[in-house]
Amino acid sequence: MKIDLRSDTVTKPTEEMILAMAQAEVGDDVYQEDPTVNRLEEIAADLLGKEAALFVTSGTQGNQVAVLTHCVNGDEVILEAESHLFYYESGAMAALAGVQTRTLPGERGAMNAVDVEKAIRGNNIHFPRTKLICMENTHNRAGGAILTPEQMKEVYDVAQKHRVPVHLDGARLFNAAAALSVDVRALTKYTDTVQVCLSKGLSAPVGSILAGDRDFIAEARWWRKKLGGGMRQAGYLAAPGIIALTQMTGRLAEDHTHAQQLEKGLRELGLDVAPVDTNIVLVNTASRQLTAVDFISRLSDKGVLASDFDEYVTRFTTHRHISENDISRVLEIITSVLEESPLRL
Amino acid sequence: MKIDLRSDTVTKPTEEMILAMAQAEVGDDVYQEDPTVNRLEEIAADLLGKEAALFVTSGTQGNQVAVLTHCVNGDEVILEAESHLFYYESGAMAALAGVQTRTLPGERGAMNAVDVEKAIRGNNIHFPRTKLICMENTHNRAGGAILTPEQMKEVYDVAQKHRVPVHLDGARLFNAAAALSVDVRALTKYTDTVQVCLSKGLSAPVGSILAGDRDFIAEARWWRKKLGGGMRQAGYLAAPGIIALTQMTGRLAEDHTHAQQLEKGLRELGLDVAPVDTNIVLVNTASRQLTAVDFISRLSDKGVLASDFDEYVTRFTTHRHISENDISRVLEIITSVLEESPLRL
Amino acid sequence: MKIDLRSDTVTKPTEEMILAMAQAEVGDDVYQEDPTVNRLEEIAADLLGKEAALFVTSGTQGNQVAVLTHCVNGDEVILEAESHLFYYESGAMAALAGVQTRTLPGERGAMNAVDVEKAIRGNNIHFPRTKLICMENTHNRAGGAILTPEQMKEVYDVAQKHRVPVHLDGARLFNAAAALSVDVRALTKYTDTVQVCLSKGLSAPVGSILAGDRDFIAEARWWRKKLGGGMRQAGYLAAPGIIALTQMTGRLAEDHTHAQQLEKGLRELGLDVAPVDTNIVLVNTASRQLTAVDFISRLSDKGVLASDFDEYVTRFTTHRHISENDISRVLEIITSVLEESPLRL
Amino acid sequence: MKIDLRSDTVTKPTEEMILAMAQAEVGDDVYQEDPTVNRLEEIAADLLGKEAALFVTSGTQGNQVAVLTHCVNGDEVILEAESHLFYYESGAMAALAGVQTRTLPGERGAMNAVDVEKAIRGNNIHFPRTKLICMENTHNRAGGAILTPEQMKEVYDVAQKHRVPVHLDGARLFNAAAALSVDVRALTKYTDTVQVCLSKGLSAPVGSILAGDRDFIAEARWWRKKLGGGMRQAGYLAAPGIIALTQMTGRLAEDHTHAQQLEKGLRELGLDVAPVDTNIVLVNTASRQLTAVDFISRLSDKGVLASDFDEYVTRFTTHRHISENDISRVLEIITSVLEESPLRL
Repeated sequence: MKIDLRSDTVTKPTEEMILAMAQAEVGDDVYQEDPTVNRLEEIAADLLGKEAALFVTSGTQGNQVAVLTHCVNGDEVILEAESHLFYYESGAMAALAGVQTRTLPGERGAMNAVDVEKAIRGNNIHFPRTKLICMENTHNRAGGAILTPEQMKEVYDVAQKHRVPVHLDGARLFNAAAALSVDVRALTKYTDTVQVCLSKGLSAPVGSILAGDRDFIAEARWWRKKLGGGMRQAGYLAAPGIIALTQMTGRLAEDHTHAQQLEKGLRELGLDVAPVDTNIVLVNTASRQLTAVDFISRLSDKGVLASDFDEYVTRFTTHRHISENDISRVLEIITSVLEESPLRL
Repeated sequence: MKIDLRSDTVTKPTEEMILAMAQAEVGDDVYQEDPTVNRLEEIAADLLGKEAALFVTSGTQGNQVAVLTHCVNGDEVILEAESHLFYYESGAMAALAGVQTRTLPGERGAMNAVDVEKAIRGNNIHFPRTKLICMENTHNRAGGAILTPEQMKEVYDVAQKHRVPVHLDGARLFNAAAALSVDVRALTKYTDTVQVCLSKGLSAPVGSILAGDRDFIAEARWWRKKLGGGMRQAGYLAAPGIIALTQMTGRLAEDHTHAQQLEKGLRELGLDVAPVDTNIVLVNTASRQLTAVDFISRLSDKGVLASDFDEYVTRFTTHRHISENDISRVLEIITSVLEESPLRL
Repeated sequence: MKIDLRSDTVTKPTEEMILAMAQAEVGDDVYQEDPTVNRLEEIAADLLGKEAALFVTSGTQGNQVAVLTHCVNGDEVILEAESHLFYYESGAMAALAGVQTRTLPGERGAMNAVDVEKAIRGNNIHFPRTKLICMENTHNRAGGAILTPEQMKEVYDVAQKHRVPVHLDGARLFNAAAALSVDVRALTKYTDTVQVCLSKGLSAPVGSILAGDRDFIAEARWWRKKLGGGMRQAGYLAAPGIIALTQMTGRLAEDHTHAQQLEKGLRELGLDVAPVDTNIVLVNTASRQLTAVDFISRLSDKGVLASDFDEYVTRFTTHRHISENDISRVLEIITSVLEESPLRL
Repeated sequence: MKIDLRSDTVTKPTEEMILAMAQAEVGDDVYQEDPTVNRLEEIAADLLGKEAALFVTSGTQGNQVAVLTHCVNGDEVILEAESHLFYYESGAMAALAGVQTRTLPGERGAMNAVDVEKAIRGNNIHFPRTKLICMENTHNRAGGAILTPEQMKEVYDVAQKHRVPVHLDGARLFNAAAALSVDVRALTKYTDTVQVCLSKGLSAPVGSILAGDRDFIAEARWWRKKLGGGMRQAGYLAAPGIIALTQMTGRLAEDHTHAQQLEKGLRELGLDVAPVDTNIVLVNTASRQLTAVDFISRLSDKGVLASDFDEYVTRFTTHRHISENDISRVLEIITSVLEESPLRL
């Protein structure tokens, strides 16, 4: 059995989740008659400090439904240049919603509010209309970096000033809240709509939540239908989702501890490691002339799985199935890989 | 507890399905590592006589992914004027895929092959290109009407002649096969790709299958990702799906028997009932000057749920939770509703 | 020199138009500083009884800009099944605007108001929203058929009742007004927006007008820009356009006379001719077992050009370059073609 | 009469152009029967070193048709972050073509080939496919900056290596060729398709050319139709276009001389001026605490028109109607504006 640090999406549900699934009371959610889905949506809205919520199949679906609901074809969205919405959602924003992406470079995933304000388009037929600003917290490609409430507020204030709504890709928002030791509402107060994942560190098998005001969610339901995201007896997925939201957020701190343990070990090996805020560790092996693809292949041979993020950047993600011992073993294996690795000249 | 004849989508899973769900072996299906999803896809491909299959969230998603994979923006699709793809999928074909719908009137849901051939566009810049022909079997708005293998072959032959692919919306394809007493492959041989639902009469809680050749399914996977239909530990849904495909198709005949029982009773009441091929019964109450909305409201007050299909047309759908006794009771209630109903003048 | 009855689009400008072009005062119309374009737009708005107008490159562009301005992606448009917007604009409504086309069969191009009302979608997430109803007057594929003010009013009343805007494809609207001997405003009062062509029978070389209220036209200008329809010194095209609108509408009656002359002659030859309302004559040669393609090819060999409209239907269109003598000659040639034409057995 | 330096798009045609227009032999270009359009397209294809060419209404239309022809919905296009296609075409790429824009920062408008290569997406369902790379030469927002043949080659080599086509927005390509003293084919050899404007410095009233290989242009014609860019007697615009291409490219050098004269004068006034390669001069008045909007308003009061490009950046564009004396006068007026301008504190 390999030690799988590719992503926290590989987490399997707890036994309690499986039991909840098996005992779930269900109905036809397209008719909004699944009591478990309805309860999940109420709990989620409350936790996130929004009027209403919608259960969706995936983080990508939650984000895309948000874009489709906030914008019409021909609009423009401002977002960070390496945000998941832009980088990893297969071009869906343009393909499905017909919106242009105005990407801004970020500092550890955070756009500068001054840049954001400059990027909001004036009223001119040569320009699309700016209809949405997106943030991502924690920011995946920035290595699980946190946006602080202050950083979010700066962007949100600009957005409010120009009456542009804000969407937050909070796939790993509970990681940010855990690391900051704040209630998640300290972050969601600086966004109009938010998507959070129930899988990943929270360990539900499938699904995400999109939250916002009541009108927004009613309209989002329409777009979810167009994407084929309307499910029937979805309560079987919502039941573990309720446990994810109500019982699993407290455990994220231990993933962060393990990530710091890995960070420390990698630095001791003299590797170039990005700062670790939460459960993601990015290491750059360019100085060893070792590409991420090579590195990962060698690790895999020895029983450790990781993801390539860039030519020389490898991502390790901690999660519920990774223990302190696993990290120690991973560090031993990395040490041996680096020793064996011939410099390519 | 009301007798719910609104749709076969309200069916809940069997105990065996729930057990299979609780015991499912799962993995991350975005990495294609969920063994239960992989098994479901293999079983489904084999049953449907296609090279490969993809598990999707819903029939709508299966259909839309098919359109997105067969066509590019600017193409045209020929389909029946009241097909689910056109009528009930919220305009998704145009919204997501940018394809124009060329609708043809059907005879009990069946397009005439001569009409289809006429509708295929010639090579002229005033015309979009015809890139797909869709059929639906059984046909929902035609009252669960069956397309026979012969009817499907006629359209498929025209399509082949003009090198236009064919997609089959087979949400209730196993009902057609059951009613015709044929293997489902006797129908799928006349289509390039097909979508079948695991929920509805087959009783799985969530999900559909899209099947086709290997290249098509590889590309479909890409579009499913864009729609946010890529799920993580999807095996929990795939497990009951396997039971649906392998153990539940045999039971559909009893739904048909109950639908015929209802049809017979309604005719005896002098009502205008559409021919019943499978598990759907359409009744027109125009002659009683009773709108569907009124009719349904009165039925609901007395414990029977149905769907309005048109101003004067009501749909009753039989399924696993409906017994012979239920139908007898439904007929009694309808009788009393009709007796009470004052003629509106 | 062949007698060209393919379309009235082949008309060349009058000498006066060419002079006006050569002497036009121009400016940069993207800055809205071309005085000739501005004057054309004012004249057109006034003639059509609307607040404002926009000069566009073609009838297709005017229609598509109208759809893009009235609708957003995911909406539905009701229109006649053989309307130009649906049939001849290369699928642009879906490709560009992401809107689904709900086509209704017409009686000589006229949709029935009852059908239109039935096709307006209710509020249900399974349905797209009905955001536009389109009419076409005169109706090209119905053989230049006229919609009377009464017919237009019936549809418009339904639209108003349901608060759905109406767009009129009036590419040949002045032909309808001429044939009905009414001011064009007797027709445009039953539509919110309208497109009329300056070319065709009115003989300007290029361009159409889109008219509506001020807000609509401001927004339409935005979409015209996206389509690349913003031109610089467009006054050179607007100058003949002004002559088209102000001096050429009176001459359309003579095209109608020539079309009737042709109709009469064709009937005398025992051919199956559609009723002729304006300047288009459709003849069906199925009874002679002569396809349109064959018929047209034989006519072309003898110096007459026409268009194929359907397998056995040929279209002849009269216009400013066609005289009474030309029609007589055309009838002689048709006679000889029919005599020579061997029956295909 | 103000001295208009807002854009070279304000140029009016020469008398010879107007004469050519008045005498043009025309036909219906939708049938491809306009001899003047056909001649223009042949001349343009030959000049640009491509197999075929298409006359389009505007530079925006040429660019958008190129994107629509190279890509399908869901693809990604790499282009410079301030390129016209991204910045000034109203979000059309996403709105019409459904393609995502991957913008890279440029050095005076030139993307780095290494960045381009890094931005080409790998084969992964999380990514859109990279289907097009765009360059712009001269680059408008970079102040008319030239891409040298060497710079273009570097990007083109990367593109060829990865089998990604290249489109060149050459709205002012003849300015680049003039400034470099090379045949325009020395630049177009490093692109698969190219758009050049006939208006701007070349002074035709309306229109652009899109050139590429024969299959590409055949398909582009289809998309031009969808955009409503198919015109009837378009020869009236093509005739001055022929003169633009064959007789006006030689005169661009004088616009460059005038731009340098302006650059020199502005530097002598101590202003912050971007390097001037061709006919565009960008001046930044931030150090004077003078916004572009204020600056332009003061200039306008004294008879000089310019464009605001950024909060503190003003653009002056030279063209055929601007003489050496005009520039001297403009410098006097700028001097007086700067003297009067109170510092805002």
